[in-house]
Amino acid sequence: MRLRWIFCSAILLSQLLSAQPDEGNNPASSQLLGYSSQNSQQQKDWEKRFRDGIVPDNIRENMRRLSARPHNVGSPYEKDNAEWILSKFKEYGFDARIETFSVLFPTPKERVVELLEPTKFVAKLQEPALPDDPTSNQAAEQLPTYNAYSIDGDITAPLVYVNYGNREDYDRLDRLGVSVKGAIVIARYGGGWRGIKPKVAGEHGAIGCIIYSDPKDDGYYNGEDYPSGGWRPRLGVQRGSVMDTDYPGDPLTPGIGATADAKRLAIKDAKTITKIPVLPISYADATPLLSALKGAVVPEEWRGGLPITYHVGPGPAKVHLKVSSNWDMKPIYDVIATLHGSDDGQWVVRGNHFDAWVNGADDPISGQSALLEEARMLGELHRQGWKPKRTIIYCAWDGEEPGLLGSVEWVEAHVDELKKHAIAYINSDSNERGFVSADGTQDLQSFISDVAKDVQDPETKMSVFQRSHLNKIAKAKNAEERKDLRGRKDLVVEALGDGSDFTAFQDYAGISTLNVEFGDEDDGTQYHSIYDDFYWYTHFVDTDFVYGRALAQTIGMGIMRLADADLIPIDYSPQAEAISKYETELEKLLKDKQDEFAERNLELQEGVFKATNDPRRPILPPPTEAVPPYMNFAPMKNAIDLLKKSSEHYSKVLSKWREQGSPALPAEKVGVINADLLRVPRLFLNEKGLPERPWFKNQIYAPGAYTGYGAKPVAAVREYMDEKKWKEADAQVPQVAQVIENVAAGISKAADDLESAVGQKQ
Amino acid sequence: MRLRWIFCSAILLSQLLSAQPDEGNNPASSQLLGYSSQNSQQQKDWEKRFRDGIVPDNIRENMRRLSARPHNVGSPYEKDNAEWILSKFKEYGFDARIETFSVLFPTPKERVVELLEPTKFVAKLQEPALPDDPTSNQAAEQLPTYNAYSIDGDITAPLVYVNYGNREDYDRLDRLGVSVKGAIVIARYGGGWRGIKPKVAGEHGAIGCIIYSDPKDDGYYNGEDYPSGGWRPRLGVQRGSVMDTDYPGDPLTPGIGATADAKRLAIKDAKTITKIPVLPISYADATPLLSALKGAVVPEEWRGGLPITYHVGPGPAKVHLKVSSNWDMKPIYDVIATLHGSDDGQWVVRGNHFDAWVNGADDPISGQSALLEEARMLGELHRQGWKPKRTIIYCAWDGEEPGLLGSVEWVEAHVDELKKHAIAYINSDSNERGFVSADGTQDLQSFISDVAKDVQDPETKMSVFQRSHLNKIAKAKNAEERKDLRGRKDLVVEALGDGSDFTAFQDYAGISTLNVEFGDEDDGTQYHSIYDDFYWYTHFVDTDFVYGRALAQTIGMGIMRLADADLIPIDYSPQAEAISKYETELEKLLKDKQDEFAERNLELQEGVFKATNDPRRPILPPPTEAVPPYMNFAPMKNAIDLLKKSSEHYSKVLSKWREQGSPALPAEKVGVINADLLRVPRLFLNEKGLPERPWFKNQIYAPGAYTGYGAKPVAAVREYMDEKKWKEADAQVPQVAQVIENVAAGISKAADDLESAVGQKQ
Repeated sequence: MRLRWIFCSAILLSQLLSAQPDEGNNPASSQLLGYSSQNSQQQKDWEKRFRDGIVPDNIRENMRRLSARPHNVGSPYEKDNAEWILSKFKEYGFDARIETFSVLFPTPKERVVELLEPTKFVAKLQEPALPDDPTSNQAAEQLPTYNAYSIDGDITAPLVYVNYGNREDYDRLDRLGVSVKGAIVIARYGGGWRGIKPKVAGEHGAIGCIIYSDPKDDGYYNGEDYPSGGWRPRLGVQRGSVMDTDYPGDPLTPGIGATADAKRLAIKDAKTITKIPVLPISYADATPLLSALKGAVVPEEWRGGLPITYHVGPGPAKVHLKVSSNWDMKPIYDVIATLHGSDDGQWVVRGNHFDAWVNGADDPISGQSALLEEARMLGELHRQGWKPKRTIIYCAWDGEEPGLLGSVEWVEAHVDELKKHAIAYINSDSNERGFVSADGTQDLQSFISDVAKDVQDPETKMSVFQRSHLNKIAKAKNAEERKDLRGRKDLVVEALGDGSDFTAFQDYAGISTLNVEFGDEDDGTQYHSIYDDFYWYTHFVDTDFVYGRALAQTIGMGIMRLADADLIPIDYSPQAEAISKYETELEKLLKDKQDEFAERNLELQEGVFKATNDPRRPILPPPTEAVPPYMNFAPMKNAIDLLKKSSEHYSKVLSKWREQGSPALPAEKVGVINADLLRVPRLFLNEKGLPERPWFKNQIYAPGAYTGYGAKPVAAVREYMDEKKWKEADAQVPQVAQVIENVAAGISKAADDLESAVGQKQ
Repeated sequence: MRLRWIFCSAILLSQLLSAQPDEGNNPASSQLLGYSSQNSQQQKDWEKRFRDGIVPDNIRENMRRLSARPHNVGSPYEKDNAEWILSKFKEYGFDARIETFSVLFPTPKERVVELLEPTKFVAKLQEPALPDDPTSNQAAEQLPTYNAYSIDGDITAPLVYVNYGNREDYDRLDRLGVSVKGAIVIARYGGGWRGIKPKVAGEHGAIGCIIYSDPKDDGYYNGEDYPSGGWRPRLGVQRGSVMDTDYPGDPLTPGIGATADAKRLAIKDAKTITKIPVLPISYADATPLLSALKGAVVPEEWRGGLPITYHVGPGPAKVHLKVSSNWDMKPIYDVIATLHGSDDGQWVVRGNHFDAWVNGADDPISGQSALLEEARMLGELHRQGWKPKRTIIYCAWDGEEPGLLGSVEWVEAHVDELKKHAIAYINSDSNERGFVSADGTQDLQSFISDVAKDVQDPETKMSVFQRSHLNKIAKAKNAEERKDLRGRKDLVVEALGDGSDFTAFQDYAGISTLNVEFGDEDDGTQYHSIYDDFYWYTHFVDTDFVYGRALAQTIGMGIMRLADADLIPIDYSPQAEAISKYETELEKLLKDKQDEFAERNLELQEGVFKATNDPRRPILPPPTEAVPPYMNFAPMKNAIDLLKKSSEHYSKVLSKWREQGSPALPAEKVGVINADLLRVPRLFLNEKGLPERPWFKNQIYAPGAYTGYGAKPVAAVREYMDEKKWKEADAQVPQVAQVIENVAAGISKAADDLESAVGQKQ
């Protein structure tokens, strides 16, 4: 009977499929990638000892100590923490030191948001202490609510609501006939990085920007608010940097380390300070402002969770916004701890920042606490006799919150050494409960997937790989995506944009990078608030620190595996696949734009916009758009073909070696191959950088100038396309293709060298 | 250059396309469907006089009079209105009378909603008078807020929030591990007909049901609330019937007219009274109840616009719900007005109800006022010498709000005459601003599209057809839909479900039906509230009654064109296309369910639900589902092939006649063809009715038993599929196929007879 047949075949298929990703006893993990058989078993024993040695309560105690007081850049407790971290690394047996840089870090002097018309209201701009929460009353040490690197200003103007304040939101405003010229905009947090909001507002003529946390995105709409639940309360405010996206790091020293004697720009010449003043506010402060707006009711997607009708304005709400800062230089303290390998020529780098906006239990201490527990256990194994092949460098970064200051200045100061020695950088930051993700460069995709198969998820007891893999199947948009996922044996490593300390490693120094974290089972967020503290974290997030343990196990084991492998455990096929996908996306983007504009122009001709216009709520027709011309992607496609061939070649030889049982390879050959492998990620760089952002050297991986957090793979081409500069985009294709060809050639050399080594063993 | 070429070709294409639907001077309207050339021009002259004669201010004055006081079924002002309408029809020259039926109509005696735990709160259950609104203070005549045909009850139980209270919402509750057994459910209005909410709640073991208007669906989320704006205020309540879906009309007389001497069921045997007590409340009354719920936070799609975290429950909120009614018999007064044609053998029927829940300016007086203006102008033309061929019957229905009482009882009482004489029924109800829609049976699609091309939209000055057509292009989901629309010269007539007085005509008597209205440019709604009154309507809806005029022009002209045509102006090809689409939908539904259940079972096997389960917010896996077997749609497909052939045949002969210049056809032939055409819609009936709802005779068009308003074409098959009763669904296919074959044969005869008539003229 048909029915039974379908049902049974579904079961069979599922058994086949569920057998694929497995829990630690598959051939992939029984023969570690890049390891000779001899070293593989020994490595696994050390790794098991490592995993078993990670203690959740240690992570808890690290967090308790580090988040006990506010510790922003330049604060007394930040220095105290740096010294404590230093002492810990030393205690664990690392060769540790503090590297100091001097950076521009503005702190608030004056902050005013007040409604002048049609009624009066003065915003509190203050998060109150809560009786339940023992560190929320440390007002004397708390940085006030503000957006760092806002220019000073004192303005009065009508208010306009701009949704998330992205570029497409201003297209909607145009159609509503609303201009922000001379206005103060109010944008809600979310929908991209906060620094984009004043940037785009300024580009459209606004003279000030207020950002608030809407309860729909970040409050009671999602769950009970703090302290009944974990979600942001009515007076909670998200602090944060609004530094522009030209380059990260100290605004005064782009491209060089901000050492004491570094040559500095004048503040007025620093491109990354905003053009208009910005302040963040709570939704309790935002409600009177938003309620005082008239004009068109906002489009449905723009509506938040406040019990009001959201209007666009402009006015009658008239707002006074005043911001001024102490534009001081502050020291930052990077703690750099080295565990020397038997060969100091190759480095594995691991980092997490430790500065926070206030107490920062989640951001960043949840990650920093796990990092320290990793370091403790590596030290412990070292004492037990484990000796890494490669040198391991643990970094506790200062100054991430203002703009990745600690990591960027350190990478800029050490870029030559790093390029010469670093085989990979693994980053973490905030850590929560749920599913593992590992994003970055896909040459590490097979490697990190194998690692994730060896870590147990604390809630489900399946591997963290398996849990994440099945979650992706659950979230897949359609049958095609599910089919693709079911054919996979690895995690999909997505491209990184910006938002933590990996940026300089990947985008500036061309180092293979991963950012690893657990998350997606939120009980709320107090992101960049005084309430992101130990009390909140231990009541609403990873309360028993088992996900802290999982993070330490995943990354620490990853560091060990990178450090000890005979061959750097890299496989290029997933990266070739990813780059090929990025190219396909570019072609699709062009096609979509051609279709969109042709359709729009047709509708303009047909009178569709005239027909759908409601005279009581008029919407202007969009402008006619020139349909984009065809572009020549052939150079990239040809280069990608070469990349695929060389990657497949390398993968094939690697498999051959494994099929042979991974016998030890001749040492001098291994040295040559590892030198090849070390060099490949550097080939992604083009020293001219991206056409509009020369600091960003990587031609494949980059954040978007108008997304901030979001990645824009192949940004040189894609961002011109976003700007509808088709000719300029077209001109970038051959340059990107050249980079891909260089990478393909680098991989090809590695494959040839490996083939020769493996051949010798037959 | 490519770019220019694409752009130019878009313009050319658009010019071609925009030339298709045009503004009154196309061949279609220059030679009216079903008209000889001789009659066509004369008809157009009369129609123009009709259109020009419709006066918005008359519609305003009709509304002022009819909505001046509350006029629900059985109220003094309802009788007064009936008599006034009667006098108007007589004044216009119609042969008018009142037909009275006696129906069960419960009105509230006791109503209590109170929160007992964890805090106390007594719901107001009262819409307050507003100083601005001069009729909102007629409390003595206003029906209290209630749901008619709720069973009496007095219960106390924990509360559970069930979203819209549809069947799929209970599947979600199952996965949250929440049962409503023994509970009172609180559902928000929307997502389907209100009567479904207590029905489904009762089926799941709930003992009471509260329905409230959430501001997200119906309040400040959408725009300012009344009286600042048009949207429902915090204490506004939607009254309404919750009669079960077994059959419409008087609960005591299914299938027969509720005349004085009709045989009646005992109230306890009436299947359409709810099984559990129900009351509607405002969101001001709902807020304390919803705020008192704990348990899981609701799924994102379930969240409304109140400034709270929505929880599912059950409890700790404990609620007391008490409802009792006066179960009285009430008279209803249908006003039936006839304008005799030169041939009384064929009737064109037009209706709109005039009863309301309270003052009902929008629902239904906006439609009723336009209907009366149509009748005035038809009378005026009649005095000027226009004499319709067919008899025109204008109906002002009483008792629509409780359950289509007036129209259903009248149709049941007159079903034999109607089947013998009625060629079409055109309904309207509430009328607002915006886009015309005409839904019903697609044999009238070409006809009503032609009519809509001859009516000017008051806002855009394009034809109402063109505006609606372009709006559909704007709203189309994808390029394929847009392409299909651009290839069309007609409006798409969608299938009707339930919700106004067309039901008995289409579903019980097998009469070709249209429901015509303007809408979709809402400035709010006060649906079934005391605020749906003249003040509100004239401030926030069709303030200058130009859409009342457009409605009267469209329908009145449609009535004239139906009445005067030589051949009943029907074309079957759009109907064959629609029925074919319904069959395709059934196949797709089956395929989708097969895929869905196979995927679900596979995910159960893979452990996807285990992987995605958050132990702090546990979600149970869904049950394994047997994958549906294949069904045999061949009989329907074969029948539809016959239907398409016969329809194409009829359309072709019709075109041939038109190509000949539409010479007059021999009268005796015309009589035979019209008799054929009159009979065809009756062939959709199967006297056994739908398998689970025997009152519904139409085998293609029906409302859903679990949608109410929503249509379920081919319900006999589709509803069994919805119930996962695949075998029963399969068994219905041949019966539906037989009906389609009968229709095909009927059309085939008409085509042959027309061919013979047209052939004679050559």
